[in-house]
Amino acid sequence: MTSEHLLRLRARMKKYKIDLYIVFLSDDHNSEYVGEHFKEAAYLSGFTGSNATLVIRREEAGLWTDGRYFVQAKRQIEGSGFTLFEMGQEDVPTVEEYVKEHLKKGMTLGYDGRHITLKAHRAYEAIAKKNHAKLSITRNLVDDIWKERPPLPKRPLWILTDEYAGKGVDEKLACVREKMEKAHADAHLLTSLYDIAWLLNLRGDDISHVPVFMSFLYIEKKKVTLYVEKGAIGKAVKSYLKAHHITLKPYEAVYRDAAKIGRMRLLIDSTIVNAALVGTLSNKTTLVEKKNPTERMKCKKNATEQKNTRLAHIKDGVAVTKFIYYIKTNIGKKEMTEYSAARYLQRLRKKQPHYLDDSFDTISAYGANAAMMHYTATEESHAVLEDKGFLLVDSGGHYLEGTTDITRTITLGTLTEEERIAYTRVLRAALRLMAAHFPKGTYSQNLDILARGPMWDECLDYRCGTGHGVGHILNVHEGPNGFRAKITDAYPLCELRPGMITTDEPGLYEEDKYGIRIENELLCVADKKTEYGEFYKFENLTVAPIDLDAVEASMLTQYEKETLNAYHKWVFETLKPYLTKKEAVWLEKETRKI
Amino acid sequence: MTSEHLLRLRARMKKYKIDLYIVFLSDDHNSEYVGEHFKEAAYLSGFTGSNATLVIRREEAGLWTDGRYFVQAKRQIEGSGFTLFEMGQEDVPTVEEYVKEHLKKGMTLGYDGRHITLKAHRAYEAIAKKNHAKLSITRNLVDDIWKERPPLPKRPLWILTDEYAGKGVDEKLACVREKMEKAHADAHLLTSLYDIAWLLNLRGDDISHVPVFMSFLYIEKKKVTLYVEKGAIGKAVKSYLKAHHITLKPYEAVYRDAAKIGRMRLLIDSTIVNAALVGTLSNKTTLVEKKNPTERMKCKKNATEQKNTRLAHIKDGVAVTKFIYYIKTNIGKKEMTEYSAARYLQRLRKKQPHYLDDSFDTISAYGANAAMMHYTATEESHAVLEDKGFLLVDSGGHYLEGTTDITRTITLGTLTEEERIAYTRVLRAALRLMAAHFPKGTYSQNLDILARGPMWDECLDYRCGTGHGVGHILNVHEGPNGFRAKITDAYPLCELRPGMITTDEPGLYEEDKYGIRIENELLCVADKKTEYGEFYKFENLTVAPIDLDAVEASMLTQYEKETLNAYHKWVFETLKPYLTKKEAVWLEKETRKI
Repeated sequence: MTSEHLLRLRARMKKYKIDLYIVFLSDDHNSEYVGEHFKEAAYLSGFTGSNATLVIRREEAGLWTDGRYFVQAKRQIEGSGFTLFEMGQEDVPTVEEYVKEHLKKGMTLGYDGRHITLKAHRAYEAIAKKNHAKLSITRNLVDDIWKERPPLPKRPLWILTDEYAGKGVDEKLACVREKMEKAHADAHLLTSLYDIAWLLNLRGDDISHVPVFMSFLYIEKKKVTLYVEKGAIGKAVKSYLKAHHITLKPYEAVYRDAAKIGRMRLLIDSTIVNAALVGTLSNKTTLVEKKNPTERMKCKKNATEQKNTRLAHIKDGVAVTKFIYYIKTNIGKKEMTEYSAARYLQRLRKKQPHYLDDSFDTISAYGANAAMMHYTATEESHAVLEDKGFLLVDSGGHYLEGTTDITRTITLGTLTEEERIAYTRVLRAALRLMAAHFPKGTYSQNLDILARGPMWDECLDYRCGTGHGVGHILNVHEGPNGFRAKITDAYPLCELRPGMITTDEPGLYEEDKYGIRIENELLCVADKKTEYGEFYKFENLTVAPIDLDAVEASMLTQYEKETLNAYHKWVFETLKPYLTKKEAVWLEKETRKI
Repeated sequence: MTSEHLLRLRARMKKYKIDLYIVFLSDDHNSEYVGEHFKEAAYLSGFTGSNATLVIRREEAGLWTDGRYFVQAKRQIEGSGFTLFEMGQEDVPTVEEYVKEHLKKGMTLGYDGRHITLKAHRAYEAIAKKNHAKLSITRNLVDDIWKERPPLPKRPLWILTDEYAGKGVDEKLACVREKMEKAHADAHLLTSLYDIAWLLNLRGDDISHVPVFMSFLYIEKKKVTLYVEKGAIGKAVKSYLKAHHITLKPYEAVYRDAAKIGRMRLLIDSTIVNAALVGTLSNKTTLVEKKNPTERMKCKKNATEQKNTRLAHIKDGVAVTKFIYYIKTNIGKKEMTEYSAARYLQRLRKKQPHYLDDSFDTISAYGANAAMMHYTATEESHAVLEDKGFLLVDSGGHYLEGTTDITRTITLGTLTEEERIAYTRVLRAALRLMAAHFPKGTYSQNLDILARGPMWDECLDYRCGTGHGVGHILNVHEGPNGFRAKITDAYPLCELRPGMITTDEPGLYEEDKYGIRIENELLCVADKKTEYGEFYKFENLTVAPIDLDAVEASMLTQYEKETLNAYHKWVFETLKPYLTKKEAVWLEKETRKI
């Protein structure tokens, strides 16, 4: 069976003589999460996961997604005419390998060049050339058929005042221009929504839980042009932009204007900028390919951002601790579900002053459901909590002071020995990384084994990074800092530096049994300076008890116990003033010395 | 004051209109240690360390070396007219920076292009171009003045029979040709002495303690040419080469022959091949720049090499253990010095069957002398051993079965608390790395912190890698595998694989006080295969007791104690059959459970 949408797309492909058509789940900005307007993959295949690539031929239509989504994808694409390609599984070709195989001499490969990075586009260009095929990147075939496509969002922008941003837009722009000069660039086209929002101290609401706004920024030596939907700009923002000499132009105008840039050395980031935009440049324009200078600026949080983030974490810690108290004291007494628990937590966060939004959809997963790393309980489909096993809750908030991301795995009652051992392993992993000391020049790749070691020692692992950088009222996932064993485009070799905030979130996930994750955010701070160099360490930002009921204390080393006890002492002292007497008595027990 | 040699060199520079002349301590093969013929730096400056670069201008002559040699260099270059540039110290320019500053428009920079890698040469070429200066790489000015220069060595070659090599030359050549084909290369010019010796299963004696022979190897699809001094080839080797269809040509002929290669795609390793050799190629020859295929082949020891290396380590362990017994039972009774101890150890090694040579000059360093990582005691200058503090002995042997490298730090009597704590830290470091488990795909850079962590936790460090690969009857230092936090040309990102042998040698070095190092060799072997991947672990090759007299047991975790006890149990059981009764009784105590 083939869906109506797919049939219509194939008709368009035939009309425009396109033999292979690729649909990327992306926007013009290589954003991790995208607005409804961009969800072409779901329109065509029915699959709603956050990672999807479709390749459509006359003979076959394929959906590529990763291990987090195999079960969901299978269910959702039934009857759509799409076949699932399970990424990373043995003998499953990558999208590139698939295209390489099926793009024959004389054929045409098509995709919307706005939804692919220049770097990825070049790989397909090379395949097309090698296979003596043609490439068409200027026509979006889904546009033609998706009549009810939601419009581009243009929610109102708002100003993050200097008191909260810590550094004014003029100062930030001066830094960017310094780096442009160093790179001998005359101009810089910035297309990352996170970086534009950070640079201009503006926020929006165009992507769910990611307070950015659809825009491009063109920075010249003496001039700055912001391409954004006029309807999103209120009076205050208008005069703010004027005060900083930033010219306004319509969002779409960037594509016409890029063509007119002319004889300039233009700094762009080929791992982010979209291929269509670069395609409009005249051949007089010389590309200076570098990472966006803002990337290495925004990842080192300034003093104000650091100070405020600590405050945001206390608010968040109060909400999460009250939540854990509620769950642990009511389990077996009140009917609670994964979904009601998540709703309850959201209500607690909303009560905190300066709460803006959740920083992502809360993961509230009971028992075996938690083995799916990105499980979502819904009003329609969720598990009822019982007084046994674990409830894993991964959640976070945006506050005016900053963004949080925290996971706690809560003991609801009796546990199996296997669960206790696995939990203690995850705890050891988190503690070891938290307690690290390391000299300037250390890469996150050097530290990853501190967390992964207790798993590897048993030939176990978790199939994801140990941690990611955290945006400041931006995307909760932010590079280049992260804790990983591997080197990727988003998480390259990156020296850890004071001011960077990274999550520490090892886990263990046993299919059909349990999922365990403990996540704290760590701020890199200066330690001692000795003859061996400048040393750094981590400061815990996350303030919430780590469940002791599942701990096998005999598995912890003395150093690990000390790390845990010191953390819990600080948690209790920090949160006590914000709790009821009952909660405080409970917390004191929860943070007991082991 | 300026030495006669330097004056003569400057006269030559004037004659040939060379304004800056660089002398590299290297041979035509980028060897780590070089033969006497190549020690131009010592001839000119008097400095005999293994790392030296000289830059000579009319106004100044500079010697660059690293921290291991600052004290020695200062003493040796006195009165030579050279100034010491301490590498890595703040405000000290690198050689490149120095050249960049002093090479003015119209000037000429000169060096012998045979003694620099293509990669390094390109950097100077870029500097010369940028500074509008000229470059001369075909004239060796030291040749002109060094009348008594030792000739090129040509000691006789010998065959490592298949029984010891584990893989025949034809099979190895077929593998290389497969990799050439994959790289679309028609021919391959191999210039690394280690790789040529490994590939041909031949050994020589042209570099002290490194059993290689001066040669080049040119591999075509159907033909192999070995460039080597005829005098080094005996009858047996001649017929061996003939049997494998390997043509012989004189060593120096490679420079003439390279010019005649013509229209070929030639595989070379730009981080090893010398610039002069590449300079002789015609412009019809296309370079295919890749690492030498042999590098990734020889670092994974085959089954025979592994089996034999285990045997070599038992012999070596017997010698080292008898040595430790001798030292520990005679200290305070017999007069012993650093030098006499080293001689005694060498005699014990020589008694072992199939002993060929020491694998490097033994480091026997007492007390504060051990704080110099590469200290050498001589017959003329050495310390007398007393019944307090540590004796550090770093040594190794070449046997027909393989090569060893081991360090033990021996307690001679009373120790300070600081010494005991430092020793235990080093021990923890070594044990943690030794006990690692990790999945396929793990880089050595991921593991380094296991050893360095106990140092970093106290804001301490050691200023070198944690370990290096070990050549099989070749250079005791061999890449690409090693344990390092950083990524370098010699130790790049390298996935650890079964068959690789790497040293585990953390240390602590406190100037004017003590030096502590514990070194075992680890063989990477397969562990379990689980749903999380293929896991690897390490097998200890080194068999010798680790001194327990300096251990603060309370600083070790349970896991570390278990690792140590299991190691010591195996050491005792393995060595017992080779010891006298007295030695065995002593060793049982030395390897007691803690």
